[in-house]
Amino acid sequence: MQAGIIGLGLIGGSLGLALKETGMFKRIIGLDNNPLHLQQALSLGLVDEGAELEEIKLCDVIFLATPVEAILQLLPSLVGIAPHCTIIDLGSTKHLISKSVPLEIRKNFVCAHPMSGTENFGPKAAFKELLPHHILVLTDLEQSGELQVAMAKEIFVALKMNIIKMDSKSHDNHAAFISHLPHIISYALANTVLSQQNPNDILALAGGGFKSMVRIAKSSSRMWCDISKQNREELLKSLDFFQKEIHFAQTLIQEEKWDELEKWMAKANSLYEIF
Amino acid sequence: MQAGIIGLGLIGGSLGLALKETGMFKRIIGLDNNPLHLQQALSLGLVDEGAELEEIKLCDVIFLATPVEAILQLLPSLVGIAPHCTIIDLGSTKHLISKSVPLEIRKNFVCAHPMSGTENFGPKAAFKELLPHHILVLTDLEQSGELQVAMAKEIFVALKMNIIKMDSKSHDNHAAFISHLPHIISYALANTVLSQQNPNDILALAGGGFKSMVRIAKSSSRMWCDISKQNREELLKSLDFFQKEIHFAQTLIQEEKWDELEKWMAKANSLYEIF
Repeated sequence: MQAGIIGLGLIGGSLGLALKETGMFKRIIGLDNNPLHLQQALSLGLVDEGAELEEIKLCDVIFLATPVEAILQLLPSLVGIAPHCTIIDLGSTKHLISKSVPLEIRKNFVCAHPMSGTENFGPKAAFKELLPHHILVLTDLEQSGELQVAMAKEIFVALKMNIIKMDSKSHDNHAAFISHLPHIISYALANTVLSQQNPNDILALAGGGFKSMVRIAKSSSRMWCDISKQNREELLKSLDFFQKEIHFAQTLIQEEKWDELEKWMAKANSLYEIF
Repeated sequence: MQAGIIGLGLIGGSLGLALKETGMFKRIIGLDNNPLHLQQALSLGLVDEGAELEEIKLCDVIFLATPVEAILQLLPSLVGIAPHCTIIDLGSTKHLISKSVPLEIRKNFVCAHPMSGTENFGPKAAFKELLPHHILVLTDLEQSGELQVAMAKEIFVALKMNIIKMDSKSHDNHAAFISHLPHIISYALANTVLSQQNPNDILALAGGGFKSMVRIAKSSSRMWCDISKQNREELLKSLDFFQKEIHFAQTLIQEEKWDELEKWMAKANSLYEIF
């Protein structure tokens, strides 16, 4: 079997490295619109060879690992693949992608989202341990072909990922709270400090707490802008809930309701009873 | 020389372990109002012996490592120490503590804040690497005695800490942005997820991003409620700035201004050019 990966950044590159280890594919080819990224990916051995889209379309399994807006743009050009072919998209949003797949290839298509990533991006950020032992969400499987679902599962089991299935609407709701909202918050905290008169003086005092809160503010603005666009509604809902919490804490501090503030903090502590 | 530590949790316990390594003190005694914590601290060897306050007051150096409200309550009872004695408080807020020190012992007193911590607390959370190689802020040094400043510096240099000096007002402003605000945000994110109908389903998808954003939501509610109380004004100011950033992002997403959203995210990325 032959695999093709479109998008050779953190996710696509790490996938290439991990797929090589499984031995499932005789050859893994890759495509990246950015010539420098393609060159880096090849010299790092993330895939065996570079290829054009027409050659990728001949693969048994095609992975889409570009930012999510590019996935939408790619979809029409994938029409014409062989009936047995499996296309797996790895985007962080699922509903819009799932409903945008052309009908002719909907059975070939499996919607996936690996719940792992780092604040780094591009081929140099790739490492083979990124995906194994992490959660992999598969959505809207009833719209995919039996053969394609079986193929996707075989691959993700070989990658030692823990599969969770749900519909794409639920995914987008959950992903907003667990991933998209936290990124907006981290960007907002970074910008809060940067907007002060003396960010350097403030940053000189940074300890582990601040560092862990702004780690993902280093993430790709292009990628996260795309995600915000595609999951706009759910993200706005989660932002509303978050703002209510912040406003609640602010009011308690403003009104010096310390017992209630301590209870609110203790409620947050209780996350670790179920987590 | 003999040292006494009041409060044998994460900070006081870690300090005890690190002080032992320096060999500066012949004997290190400790006090904790919680009998279980005292017992744990002794069995973990965080200090050499337990002691009453009257015995602690005979030490050459006394460290205050309780939650900050307890530091305020302790201050009057420290009057009566020997003239050469150095008292070092390690609280996360500085202005209120600094101005609350009784005049009789103000020269004995050195205000310090180690910019290190973890989400864990209590004696079992202590470890000797917590303080070394981290930032240590000393404030309002002009109000401390020359001997006491020299002693504090000698100790923190022996602990391999990186000393930064400033006035307590600046400290409280900077600490609000770099530490106190991030804790409120982390608690708010945890409570946002917990307030949903199905927190377990959402948490099942948690990856590294969410985990790093809610790590400090595990922190002691007592300790952080105290800090919020003592740094109320600066914390409220920082919350205002943060809410403006969140509201700005929300508006851009609401109004689908994607180019501006990407710029806002890229601005946050730029934190890493100076950090």
